Amino acid sequence: MTNLRIPGPTPCPPEVLSAMGRQMMNHRGGEFMKTVLSVTEKLKRMFQTDNDVFLLTGSGTGGLEAAVVNSFSPGDKVLSVSIGVFGDRLANIAKTFGADVTVLKSEWGKPADPQAIKASLDNDPSIKAVMVTHNETSTGVTNDLETIAKTVKPYNKLLLVDAISSIGSINLPVDDWGIDVMVTGSQKSWMVPPGLAMVAISEKGWQANANAKMPRFYWDFARAKKSLANGGQTPWTPAVSVILALDVALDMMLSEGLENIIARHIKLGRMTREGVKALGLKLFADEAYASNTVTAVLGSDGLDAKALNKIMREEYDIVLSGGQMELEGKIFRIGHLGWVNEREVEDVLVALKTALPKAGFGGGN
Amino acid sequence: MTNLRIPGPTPCPPEVLSAMGRQMMNHRGGEFMKTVLSVTEKLKRMFQTDNDVFLLTGSGTGGLEAAVVNSFSPGDKVLSVSIGVFGDRLANIAKTFGADVTVLKSEWGKPADPQAIKASLDNDPSIKAVMVTHNETSTGVTNDLETIAKTVKPYNKLLLVDAISSIGSINLPVDDWGIDVMVTGSQKSWMVPPGLAMVAISEKGWQANANAKMPRFYWDFARAKKSLANGGQTPWTPAVSVILALDVALDMMLSEGLENIIARHIKLGRMTREGVKALGLKLFADEAYASNTVTAVLGSDGLDAKALNKIMREEYDIVLSGGQMELEGKIFRIGHLGWVNEREVEDVLVALKTALPKAGFGGGN
Repeated sequence: MTNLRIPGPTPCPPEVLSAMGRQMMNHRGGEFMKTVLSVTEKLKRMFQTDNDVFLLTGSGTGGLEAAVVNSFSPGDKVLSVSIGVFGDRLANIAKTFGADVTVLKSEWGKPADPQAIKASLDNDPSIKAVMVTHNETSTGVTNDLETIAKTVKPYNKLLLVDAISSIGSINLPVDDWGIDVMVTGSQKSWMVPPGLAMVAISEKGWQANANAKMPRFYWDFARAKKSLANGGQTPWTPAVSVILALDVALDMMLSEGLENIIARHIKLGRMTREGVKALGLKLFADEAYASNTVTAVLGSDGLDAKALNKIMREEYDIVLSGGQMELEGKIFRIGHLGWVNEREVEDVLVALKTALPKAGFGGGN
Repeated sequence: MTNLRIPGPTPCPPEVLSAMGRQMMNHRGGEFMKTVLSVTEKLKRMFQTDNDVFLLTGSGTGGLEAAVVNSFSPGDKVLSVSIGVFGDRLANIAKTFGADVTVLKSEWGKPADPQAIKASLDNDPSIKAVMVTHNETSTGVTNDLETIAKTVKPYNKLLLVDAISSIGSINLPVDDWGIDVMVTGSQKSWMVPPGLAMVAISEKGWQANANAKMPRFYWDFARAKKSLANGGQTPWTPAVSVILALDVALDMMLSEGLENIIARHIKLGRMTREGVKALGLKLFADEAYASNTVTAVLGSDGLDAKALNKIMREEYDIVLSGGQMELEGKIFRIGHLGWVNEREVEDVLVALKTALPKAGFGGGN
C-alpha cells in the first residue's frame, strides 16, 4: 500500500473506510441523528471542552470562513498572527469579509512571538480579537499556543484558533486555554476523509456571534445550534458518510486515549526530525517549535526537493508533500499525523537514504 | 435492505459505495487531479453544457450560497421566484448577503407562472437577475423552466437556477435554455452521498462575477477556475471520497444514457402518482407540474401523515419523508430519483395499501 505521508488527507483505518462505504440513510432519521449527537459528544472529549461543538460540511478553509463570519462585523479590528501560508489565508478571509486586519508576521520557519502579540495589543486597544494558527502546516511549526493564550487573556479579546492540523494529535485543551472559536478538519488528526470541518464556540464566542454583522447563511453557527438542539440535526444535508466514519474513528481514538495519541505524535515527530538530521538534512523549522504532525525539510546541499518527491513516489511508493507558495521547490514535507506508526516513518527514512543522492543531495550547493 | 425513498440522500449503487471506501490519496497528486478533470468533463455532458463546471465541497445549500455571492453585489435587485421551502431559502440567502430581493410566490403545490415573471420584469426594469428553483422538493412541483427561461431571455437578465433535485433526472439542457448559474448536489440524481455541490457558470455568469461585490472566499468561482486550470485542482482540500464515487456514478449514468435516465424518471413519477391515486390518496402538487423525482401526497380522509411514515419505517422498512415547515404533518413525500427502479416504487405502493388504514386513512376527515 502507498505510504501516504502528506499532512492530510491522512490514510484511514479499514474500519473507517468501511463506514465511508455504508449505504445512505435518512439524515433526518433517528439513527443518524443519534450518531450526530454521539460524534459531537466524543469530539468534546477530544477537544477537552464543554463548549458547543458543531459539524460543518466543507473543508477546513470553510471552517475558517465560518469562524470569521460568525465572530466579526465589517470594520472590526483584528490582529491576525501569521507564520505561514495558512496564517496568511486566515488573515485574507477576514479581510475579504471586511475586517480591519493587522497581520503580525514571523519569518517563515519561526513561531509567533507572544511578546510581539502583547506589544500589538498594548499599541492598539481597539483590537477586538486575535486570530492565530496553532500548527502551521506550510512551515512545520507549532506555535506555543498556551503562552499566546495566556498573553491574550488579560486583554479580554476574542481568541480564534486555526487548529486544523493540530488538535487531536497535539495537546490543545480548548477550555483550559480559553480558546473562543476553534476550527479543525476531518482529514487531519481524525483519520477520516476530508469533507467535514468541526468547530467549538465558547460563551464569549457566542457573545461575539450575537453582535457579528458579517453576512452568513450556510456557515451560521446559530442555525447549527438550533438544528443540533432539535434532536441532533444539521441545518443542511450533511456529509453523512464522513460523519459515520468519524464516529468510528473517534471510538478508536478514545480507545487509544488522547494522552497516548499525543505521546505517539511526540515520539513520531522526534523520530522524523532525528532521522532526517542523521541523513545530513536540515530542518526548515526552528527545532524548538518543530511540529509533531508535519516535518518540513530544507532542500540543502544540491537537493532538488521536487525531484526527490517524484523519486520517492515512483520508486518507493511513498507520497511526500512539496513546499507551498514561496517555498515551492525549496522544501519537502513529511506528514506524520493521524493513522500513522513508527514503521511508516521508518520506511520513509530508509527510502530517503537511497533516494536523496538520486535527487542531487550531497552534490554540494 | 431499507427502501430509502426520500428525495435525497438517495441510495447508492454498490460500485459507488466501494469507491467511497477507497483509501485516501494525495489531492494534489496526478491520479486525483485526473479524476477531477474527468468528473468535470462527464458532468458537462450530463448538464448538456460547454460552460465552466466546478466541484465545491459542501451541501447543495452551500452551492446556492456560492451562486448568490459570485453573481451579485449588495443592493442588486433580484427577482426570486419561490414555490416552496427551497425557493424561500434561495431568496433568504440573497437577502442575507444584501441583495434587494423581490419574492414572487406561488401557492404551494402550484408552479411559477411565467406570465407573472414577465409582469415583474416589465414592472421593474432595474431587476438584474431572476432566481428560480427548477424542482421544488418540498411540494413535489417541477417548474416549466424552459418556458421561464424563454420568458426571461429577451430581458437579458442573469438567470440563476437551483437544479439541486432535478438535473440528472429531469431534462435540463443548460446551454439550450441559457441558464447562467446552475447548482446541483451529489446526493440527488447523482447516486452518491452528500458532501459535494456542482455548479455550471455561463459567459454571462462570469461577467456578473467580475462585477459582483458580495464577499466570497471559500465559494469563490474565480479561485475554483484558476485551480481547475492548474491541472485539475480545487482551491481547498476537497471531499476526495465523494469525487471518487461521483466518477464511478457518472460512468454508470453515461452508460445508461441521459435520455434513458430521464425516461426512467418520467415512468417512475407517473407510476408513483397513478399508484397513490389508485389508493384513494390525493396529490399535493398540481398534477400537470408534478415532479418526476419526488411525489408529495396530501394527508386527506383521516390520514395521519406522521403516523404513516412511522408505520412504513417500522413495519415495512421503507423510509419516506414528511412535510417541511408549514406542511409538517400535512403531507408525506416519496422520493424516486437517482438509483431507483420500478420494483422499489412498487414495494412502496404495496406497503402503503396495508399501512394507510393503520394510519387512520379512510376514517373520514
